[in-house]
Amino acid sequence: METPRFKEIGRAYGFDEVAIAPGTVTINPEQADIALRIGEIEFALPVLASAMDAVVSPKFAGQLGRLGGLAVLNLEGLWTRYEDAEGVLGELAEAPLDQVTTLFQRLYTAPIRDDLVARRVEEIKAEGVLCAVSVTPQRTKKISPAAVEAGADVLVVQATVTTARHTSKSERGLILSELVNQVDVPVVVGNCATYAVAKELMDEGIHGVLVGIGPGAACTTREVVGVGIPQITATIECAAARDEHFARTGRYVSVLTDGGIRTGGEVCKSMVAGADGVMLGTPFAQAVEAPGQGFNWGMATPDPALPRGTRIRVGTRGTLKEILLGPSVLTDGTMNLMGALRACMGMVGAFDIRELQQAGLVFAPDIKSEGKMFQMAQGR
Amino acid sequence: METPRFKEIGRAYGFDEVAIAPGTVTINPEQADIALRIGEIEFALPVLASAMDAVVSPKFAGQLGRLGGLAVLNLEGLWTRYEDAEGVLGELAEAPLDQVTTLFQRLYTAPIRDDLVARRVEEIKAEGVLCAVSVTPQRTKKISPAAVEAGADVLVVQATVTTARHTSKSERGLILSELVNQVDVPVVVGNCATYAVAKELMDEGIHGVLVGIGPGAACTTREVVGVGIPQITATIECAAARDEHFARTGRYVSVLTDGGIRTGGEVCKSMVAGADGVMLGTPFAQAVEAPGQGFNWGMATPDPALPRGTRIRVGTRGTLKEILLGPSVLTDGTMNLMGALRACMGMVGAFDIRELQQAGLVFAPDIKSEGKMFQMAQGR
Amino acid sequence: METPRFKEIGRAYGFDEVAIAPGTVTINPEQADIALRIGEIEFALPVLASAMDAVVSPKFAGQLGRLGGLAVLNLEGLWTRYEDAEGVLGELAEAPLDQVTTLFQRLYTAPIRDDLVARRVEEIKAEGVLCAVSVTPQRTKKISPAAVEAGADVLVVQATVTTARHTSKSERGLILSELVNQVDVPVVVGNCATYAVAKELMDEGIHGVLVGIGPGAACTTREVVGVGIPQITATIECAAARDEHFARTGRYVSVLTDGGIRTGGEVCKSMVAGADGVMLGTPFAQAVEAPGQGFNWGMATPDPALPRGTRIRVGTRGTLKEILLGPSVLTDGTMNLMGALRACMGMVGAFDIRELQQAGLVFAPDIKSEGKMFQMAQGR
Amino acid sequence: METPRFKEIGRAYGFDEVAIAPGTVTINPEQADIALRIGEIEFALPVLASAMDAVVSPKFAGQLGRLGGLAVLNLEGLWTRYEDAEGVLGELAEAPLDQVTTLFQRLYTAPIRDDLVARRVEEIKAEGVLCAVSVTPQRTKKISPAAVEAGADVLVVQATVTTARHTSKSERGLILSELVNQVDVPVVVGNCATYAVAKELMDEGIHGVLVGIGPGAACTTREVVGVGIPQITATIECAAARDEHFARTGRYVSVLTDGGIRTGGEVCKSMVAGADGVMLGTPFAQAVEAPGQGFNWGMATPDPALPRGTRIRVGTRGTLKEILLGPSVLTDGTMNLMGALRACMGMVGAFDIRELQQAGLVFAPDIKSEGKMFQMAQGR
Repeated sequence: METPRFKEIGRAYGFDEVAIAPGTVTINPEQADIALRIGEIEFALPVLASAMDAVVSPKFAGQLGRLGGLAVLNLEGLWTRYEDAEGVLGELAEAPLDQVTTLFQRLYTAPIRDDLVARRVEEIKAEGVLCAVSVTPQRTKKISPAAVEAGADVLVVQATVTTARHTSKSERGLILSELVNQVDVPVVVGNCATYAVAKELMDEGIHGVLVGIGPGAACTTREVVGVGIPQITATIECAAARDEHFARTGRYVSVLTDGGIRTGGEVCKSMVAGADGVMLGTPFAQAVEAPGQGFNWGMATPDPALPRGTRIRVGTRGTLKEILLGPSVLTDGTMNLMGALRACMGMVGAFDIRELQQAGLVFAPDIKSEGKMFQMAQGR
Repeated sequence: METPRFKEIGRAYGFDEVAIAPGTVTINPEQADIALRIGEIEFALPVLASAMDAVVSPKFAGQLGRLGGLAVLNLEGLWTRYEDAEGVLGELAEAPLDQVTTLFQRLYTAPIRDDLVARRVEEIKAEGVLCAVSVTPQRTKKISPAAVEAGADVLVVQATVTTARHTSKSERGLILSELVNQVDVPVVVGNCATYAVAKELMDEGIHGVLVGIGPGAACTTREVVGVGIPQITATIECAAARDEHFARTGRYVSVLTDGGIRTGGEVCKSMVAGADGVMLGTPFAQAVEAPGQGFNWGMATPDPALPRGTRIRVGTRGTLKEILLGPSVLTDGTMNLMGALRACMGMVGAFDIRELQQAGLVFAPDIKSEGKMFQMAQGR
Repeated sequence: METPRFKEIGRAYGFDEVAIAPGTVTINPEQADIALRIGEIEFALPVLASAMDAVVSPKFAGQLGRLGGLAVLNLEGLWTRYEDAEGVLGELAEAPLDQVTTLFQRLYTAPIRDDLVARRVEEIKAEGVLCAVSVTPQRTKKISPAAVEAGADVLVVQATVTTARHTSKSERGLILSELVNQVDVPVVVGNCATYAVAKELMDEGIHGVLVGIGPGAACTTREVVGVGIPQITATIECAAARDEHFARTGRYVSVLTDGGIRTGGEVCKSMVAGADGVMLGTPFAQAVEAPGQGFNWGMATPDPALPRGTRIRVGTRGTLKEILLGPSVLTDGTMNLMGALRACMGMVGAFDIRELQQAGLVFAPDIKSEGKMFQMAQGR
Repeated sequence: METPRFKEIGRAYGFDEVAIAPGTVTINPEQADIALRIGEIEFALPVLASAMDAVVSPKFAGQLGRLGGLAVLNLEGLWTRYEDAEGVLGELAEAPLDQVTTLFQRLYTAPIRDDLVARRVEEIKAEGVLCAVSVTPQRTKKISPAAVEAGADVLVVQATVTTARHTSKSERGLILSELVNQVDVPVVVGNCATYAVAKELMDEGIHGVLVGIGPGAACTTREVVGVGIPQITATIECAAARDEHFARTGRYVSVLTDGGIRTGGEVCKSMVAGADGVMLGTPFAQAVEAPGQGFNWGMATPDPALPRGTRIRVGTRGTLKEILLGPSVLTDGTMNLMGALRACMGMVGAFDIRELQQAGLVFAPDIKSEGKMFQMAQGR
């Protein structure tokens, strides 16, 4: 009988399946430089806050900016639909779980107000920090001019899956290369998860890509539509596209791993997989300063016909400063994320993130060992 | 020492082990064409309802048919053994769990009545929809003529494992190529799970194959006899057989993944693995309209000596229309299955199912990440 | 830097990791011949009962023998140390769990009585069935002559790990080839788990090998000393040795998978991996007729310094006949094991065990699918 | 499109993923020689006790030394910061779990007292056994001279990750080759986990390496910073470095697997992976004689900004002698570790540890089989 050729299935790795190999050189953690650059802008910390309504408010953007990171405000969420967004957030925090999806579907149908778009940008600028805002590809042409005019410093164009070649029946699609030429600020685009798409996006002239489809704690895209690439492999692919793009064009496009990161170990693994920075949702939703009041949900949650995610209780772990810079009194990796990153760089001997990207990874599934199980069962 | 050659063990993949890679092009979901063709008949939705007594009644067949799918009535189950099948279904729904296997074994020994075979077909036709019925290979010669004469539009010949070459001591076996010539309707045969068997079945001239041995929620074939191929690999193999058959003969035989599908993600993965359509049991048993009253069981359950399955409580999730077409208020992928299929096709840039079959799959075991576990534990 | 060569680690498979591929031909189950041959003796069923005190009593040996299988009585257990072995078994069944290991260690230090060795053999022969007995390599020379003289028909020499080349300081070791020449009955030896050892054992002229180190439900050898090969790979290796031995010498040595088998699916997988028969412990301990009164333990349990196993409650599932031949009212594969074997042979189209050994295996980890989990959670 | 080269991810194995293949020869366990050599010193047992405050007190060092092993006292822990270390240990044992990390952080900031360094060494020597002490690389120059002068017989230089090339801004780093020349006792260094680092460390002239980053039950380094190599692979790599070093230089450097070992099976697997000895923490913390009073914690636990571990309740299993030499009344592998090692050597036919290192390993994930699950659920 002939030997048929069957469809091939490549291996993709997630955070829990890999570990970082220690280096042949070690350095003191305080020698490590962890700065992130997007376009011409440099950030002291390689950390963005997700454009989620429960994570980023204008005030939160000020607090994170002053610590050295960058918060992204969602211009299509509650903050631009409601004057009193905080009141609406309170309503969502108090809704019974079995009614919350319907409530989401209703609340997110209120119209986006142009005046609120501008006002939210101004509120962030008034905090004395750089302002980043996010829009979906469909609404980019409509909303982004007002935001940039109001002073936005970074524009994020984001959908669950974004490519440079979107086909649509009804309208002429967004041409990213045109957008980049029109606005005078760095443009970050996502999400993508493969080499081919990242490469095409970078060829449009953008300044950063968001990597990650389906991995977030507040997202069920993989369950609902089956689509998703685990974050380690997605980051490796997009980082390879960045390196190829840089070698070919001399332009360095930042790779930002977005989704599914909860611990310092996952921040570190993202970098070793090739990221220049990370975008965090749940860890920031757990900050005292977060607007979500101990809850979080993803941007695909309010979909009127096919919601892909729900409200999850994330609790409150500490102040934003403790979560990022410590000191930590928790030992599970969820606090002092930047201290963890520096400690990791010490162990692998990396003076900056670019060197950290060269460290080794091993496939070592974190099946909880008997020892760990023991620990968890016996009174940790 | 000589190096012995040991038996080889190939890798087979199940739904939970793979994810769909996003495409380099995206399209608007409403542009996606999801029609299914079996022989000359086209269906608006690529969905069949399993020939299970708790899933398909004549009335249910009407309801699904009007939405665009195709329900298959089991001609060897309760509906052709009992005039008052609904009363018997009520009895089964109320039996205590520890007595239900014995009750199954007893109820399914009542004789199949010729008059009921014809009447059930007529009842379905009276609903104004196409009628599909299933028989086992052993009883095909005896039962199928009456069904076709009464107006059945599609004939399904189904057993746990079916091949084109069955050997039997007592009687001359069913010759599928003869059957196809005798009946004037499309013939769907199954179940199979490998390239070689699918190829031989297609060479008999049939119009569709059912793919899946052992994966259903209501089936314990793999536990009891050890036989089974996980659905992704089974579908990949049978789709390769279809493509080979089409290239060689010009006849296109539909591949229908049958068993183990519960979410939109699994519908999508089936198609990416190569299916043209899916057959659903449990998701339809969860419809308000299902005759099983919140329960389901497989066709191997009533076996008098070796029952392979039992009654499971599946509950009720929503109307048939909500389950298929939404809108959904659940976020776990079990409602709006066709909306999920369209959303997936948008993300991979597929204008029809045939294009969706070309999308990429990655091996990415869905070990619940800490984030997801967190979500489940903390009050989702 | 030079590339060092690291120790290689080959893949080994267990029952839960594989599934049997359906065949290209199917047959009617009743056409399948499931007989087992050990030396010149043929058994109607390919099933041995483990030489465990809670499984095989002389009476149980009669009951199993009359059904067509072969029970092996442990000549170094309670039955040859105590006149009233049943009373001792009752004491063990009633001991509190935290004292049972100490009780085992004490009870198994009573001396083995020569008169009881002969008497137990005679009791089995009085049941009108063939008699098989087991001894350890250390005591083979001392105990086996009396057993054979009393009428034993099959001699089993069994230890946790047995090789043809045992080194011992204190005494001249057992030479298997001498033993085979001395006794006039088939000799079965084990346990082994690799090609090399099985080959050397077969070259000694023995008639059967027991395959399996560490897998049994009542055994913790793998936890305690780290040694063990999962049963599918162990069986595949030993079956390859058998086939090589047969091709070279014309002698057919039976391969018997021993340990870890609880369901019909596992019986079937053992055969497809290459076994000629299986040895069952826990499934028989669950028979109404078993002497263990709903409990079981392994032969390494009473070790005075390093016990590797303990008493486990196995419960009672049905009569020996129901467990072997059905009918079953359970759907988890633990009853009608021979019916399951025949059903499997039907699905793969095997007329005898030798043909069943040629069926295909796939690596398909039985991570309980969401569907199955659902089934288990929702009221199966 | 070009085919990009993606970052490679090698496979690394942990204890639970491998099993030891039985040998082609077996020997009597009592013939096995299990001695360990570090430099010129020979130990009857290949076992070190971890430099953890809850494991090794001066008195415990005496007890372990008299049995044939070697305890390592942490010179930077509570024993050299507090006169009444036992009182402080009692305080830690009684602290509520949610306050213990803060308490650790406070207690471990007390200064290390030179007088206590010398006194603890003298206390161990007064027990009539060899004395081993541990220091971190940063404090080696400051503390180790006093310890060696007071009579320490083995010097352990240990940090989470240690390399031969540490870079530091503020001070001239520790040069291991100088240290080895200065002190007149064997020097053991760690922890490392890769071939390259082990090779460089050995080239410094040291006498032993500790292998293991992140695996211990009391350590969360992998969660917090993502760094870690599972112990089987780490040991295989470092053992390969040892063999290369020995072949090249004629010097034999002992490889000591440190962390994550709880059972006899794990001791055996460490050796088969290539270790000459093991360092145990939790198993000794469970001894009646351990100073931790049923608790344990790692050396990274008290970190003031980034604690990586916490206090875990380990309970008390038996006397130190029972844990090491038996007899055991437990059947889970946690007692009679040396008996288990000898039993394993019997099964693989190894007369000494060097031969045991040549045994085979298979990849056989210890997914608890249904049988085992059954055992656990049903009243073991």
